This record gives sequence, structure tokens and C-alpha cells, in this order.
Amino acid sequence: MAGTDRRFDVPAGPMPVVVLVRPQMGENVGTAARAMLNFGLTELRLVDPLCGWPNAKAVNAASGASVVLNQLEIFETTAAAVADLHRVYATTARPRDMTIEVLTAEAAACDMRRQLGAGQRVGVLFGPERTGLENDDIALADAVLTVPLNPGFSSLNLAQAVVLVAYEWFKGGDGTPPRIEPGADALAPATKGEVEALLNHVVTELEGTAFFRSEDRRAKRIEELRLLLERRQLRSVEVQTLRGMVKGLTQERRPPRSRG
Amino acid sequence: MAGTDRRFDVPAGPMPVVVLVRPQMGENVGTAARAMLNFGLTELRLVDPLCGWPNAKAVNAASGASVVLNQLEIFETTAAAVADLHRVYATTARPRDMTIEVLTAEAAACDMRRQLGAGQRVGVLFGPERTGLENDDIALADAVLTVPLNPGFSSLNLAQAVVLVAYEWFKGGDGTPPRIEPGADALAPATKGEVEALLNHVVTELEGTAFFRSEDRRAKRIEELRLLLERRQLRSVEVQTLRGMVKGLTQERRPPRSRG
Repeated sequence: MAGTDRRFDVPAGPMPVVVLVRPQMGENVGTAARAMLNFGLTELRLVDPLCGWPNAKAVNAASGASVVLNQLEIFETTAAAVADLHRVYATTARPRDMTIEVLTAEAAACDMRRQLGAGQRVGVLFGPERTGLENDDIALADAVLTVPLNPGFSSLNLAQAVVLVAYEWFKGGDGTPPRIEPGADALAPATKGEVEALLNHVVTELEGTAFFRSEDRRAKRIEELRLLLERRQLRSVEVQTLRGMVKGLTQERRPPRSRG
Repeated sequence: MAGTDRRFDVPAGPMPVVVLVRPQMGENVGTAARAMLNFGLTELRLVDPLCGWPNAKAVNAASGASVVLNQLEIFETTAAAVADLHRVYATTARPRDMTIEVLTAEAAACDMRRQLGAGQRVGVLFGPERTGLENDDIALADAVLTVPLNPGFSSLNLAQAVVLVAYEWFKGGDGTPPRIEPGADALAPATKGEVEALLNHVVTELEGTAFFRSEDRRAKRIEELRLLLERRQLRSVEVQTLRGMVKGLTQERRPPRSRG
């Protein structure tokens, strides 16, 4: 999905820091930067990047998200990268020990917003692409963050993992309502009276036709038609459309006027 | 995040169909297939693929997710691709008209599960990578599905968009609790009695030291220590660790035993 949509506000204020631990490929650092910026995240730290830094592939892959790369910080160790943070979440698919709390990305995002709101600094660790975080990295974290995935096939790449974590964080600060009904005036619902008038119009035109085969059949069919029209949540313009349709259909059935 | 985690169940039963409309690059069809399979989605349809089909780049990019490509279906038009579906969601960043309902991915996922549970067939349309869905495609949809993004930078690629939609759907059928406390017996919380015993141990060792400078200072410091220990949610093993620490510290302070 690309483009600019003014309905969403980038949450103002503090944000979680993304920490890529020993990233292996420059391109992935670039795509991670893009992933971050989609959700308003701009604070990136690299720990002992195996891909080296600066890295031209990262810059290429980041393209429009270079602002993130331009201000990133490099650290030699994970401990150094998190030294100034109050809360650290470690992303991993398979928590390797049972001595740390495991949160879903959604629950972690909720905690992060609370912690950031309280003035704490928060970071999220992502491990090397092929091997993931080491136990020594996870030991620095307060909790493990994980995402529900298909147990038979769990293969998100680094940028996708960043997307999901950033999305959950952004979603919590975003004010978009779950559902937006179409709102233009032209789409106003029809009133019950408008629908009843349509029904009467239809019934009038159907009098004497095979549709109303007998008296009790007639009553039943009118009821069927009424329910059909009433519960359709028809718009006012749709009622007009249907009335026009009925008119057109019935005009076809009238004998043509004598042509002079 | 990669690997296998037995804690999550792939939701059984019907699933939404992913429809890629006029995909431009084979590689993106492959990465979309991988994205799908991470969340247990296996039903893929292509509409008039601009990249052609079969496509070797797609097969390469799909790698472990070839099961999805092997069973995909090709259609000439979007209308044909959705003809058997009851409900269709169109993904787009910027709804171009005001006559259709707009749902967040989360709200749409909720609707989808309800519809699938009622035996309806559901599909989600994703447009060509660079241009997105046309109005004619969106006209076939019941609702637009969108994701809260940074208005200043909205640049998810196709696979990332599929990841987010699939994630929201999968999340709703997944039973993972938001938070899992570390559960091993070794991590059982300490009882109040254990904490009090630790406190008493500490207080005893601090008697006569500068820490308890005066009588009212003593009462206040004991209270401080009690609150510190009581509200730490200490584990039983942690209390033992602290008692050992206190022992060690006090042994240092004792004169060494005479060595024989």
C-alpha cells in the first residue's frame, strides 16, 4: 500500500528504538529502515554490524527512508546499545528459556506505550537474519516479544518482523476507527416512508399480473417484498434508482402510444 | 523470526483467498506466497498476471512455500476471480470514493472470521505493485481494507501488505495468551514468609552498623527494606540467592577463622 493518507496521525512523542543485532546483510538494514518509517519509527541502532557500516546496499534498499539511516547509531555490543534504555524487548520465534516473560507483539506494544508515556526509554532487539538472537542478547531483555505464526512454516524476514512490531505499536497510538461508513450526503439512508412508497409503487404495478396469483398469495408476496426492501439498508438514492427501474419496466409493458 | 513453535495452532477450516490482481513481478508473487504461508494461508489466485505464469522468479522467491504456488489459480479478470466468493475486501491505502465502507485490517479480520464461520467464501484483493487496484476492481468489493500507516511515508511492498492482512486474520484464530509468565517450578514466587525471613536475616546482620544509625532511623530503614523486598515480586530462588549474598557479605566482615 503506497501513497499519502491524511486520515492517520503519526503518533507524536517518544518512540521505541529498533536495535538490529549483528545484521548480516546491508540490504536488510535498508529494508528494515523502510519498514520502520512506514510506522513513524526513526530511531535505529546497529550492534556490531556483520555487513559493515557504512553500507551502500543498505542506502539503496532504504531509498526514501534514508532519514533513518542518516541518524542511526552503531555500538560494539548489545549491552552498550541498550545501556541507556529502561525497557528492552527481544524478538524471537522460539523463547529458549522459561525464565522470561513472553508477550505477543500486541501485548508488548501496549506495555511500550505505557512505558514511553511514563518517560521510560524502550528498545526492541532483532537478531541476525539467519541465527536470531543469542542467549546473551536475550539476557539483557525484560521480556521476549513474539508473533503468532504457522508452526509448520515460520519464515518472516527481518523487514517483515520489524513491520509487524512497528505496526502493533503504531496501531495503538492511531485514532482510526475500525470502520468508516461511506459518509457523503448522497449516500444517506432511505427513510421508511421512501421504502414504503417504493413498495406501494411495485405492488401497484404488479396488480393483475401473475405475480399476485391469488388473494392470499398476494398478501404473502407483499410481505416478502416488504421484508426484502426494508432490511436491505437501502440508500435514498438507491430507492430512487429502483423506482426508476420499476417505471422503465412497466413502460416497456404498456402498449406504445400511437405515433402521429 | 524463523523456526517451529508448537505453541501456536494453525486455525483449522476455511480461510480467506488471496487475490493478486495483475501482479507485475514474479518475485513478488513468490514472496507473497511465503508471506501467506507464515499465517497458514494457502489459497492464492492471480488475475491476468503481468509477470506471466508460470514464472521462474516466483518459484525461486517462494522457496519453502511452493505448496501455495502449486495450487494457485489464474483468472483473466477480477470479476472471474471473485465470482464464487461471497465477500470481497479490497486493499488500498487511499480509498478513492466515499461510497464504500472502509475497515481497518483488524476490523476486516473480525468480519472475515465471522463470515467464514458462517460458511461464506471470502477473498482479499491486492493490486499491481506500482499502481494499486483500479476503481473497476474496487467496485467488485464489499469493503475497502486499509492499514494505519505514516501519512508521510506509506510504502509497504506487496508481501508486507499480505503479511499484515494475514497476520490480523491469523491472530484472531490463534489462542496464544497475550502474556506468558515464566512457568517452571524453579521460578515459583516466594511466599511472604520467605521474604520476611530474608528481611529478618538482613536486619539482624545490620544491627549495630551505621545503617541503623538511631532508633527511629532503624524503624524507617526496616520499613524501606521491607517495601523493597515485598514489592519486588521476588521468586523463591531469588530470595535464596539474596540470603546467600547476605551471608557472603557478612562472612567477609567476620574476622577469618584461625587456620590450623
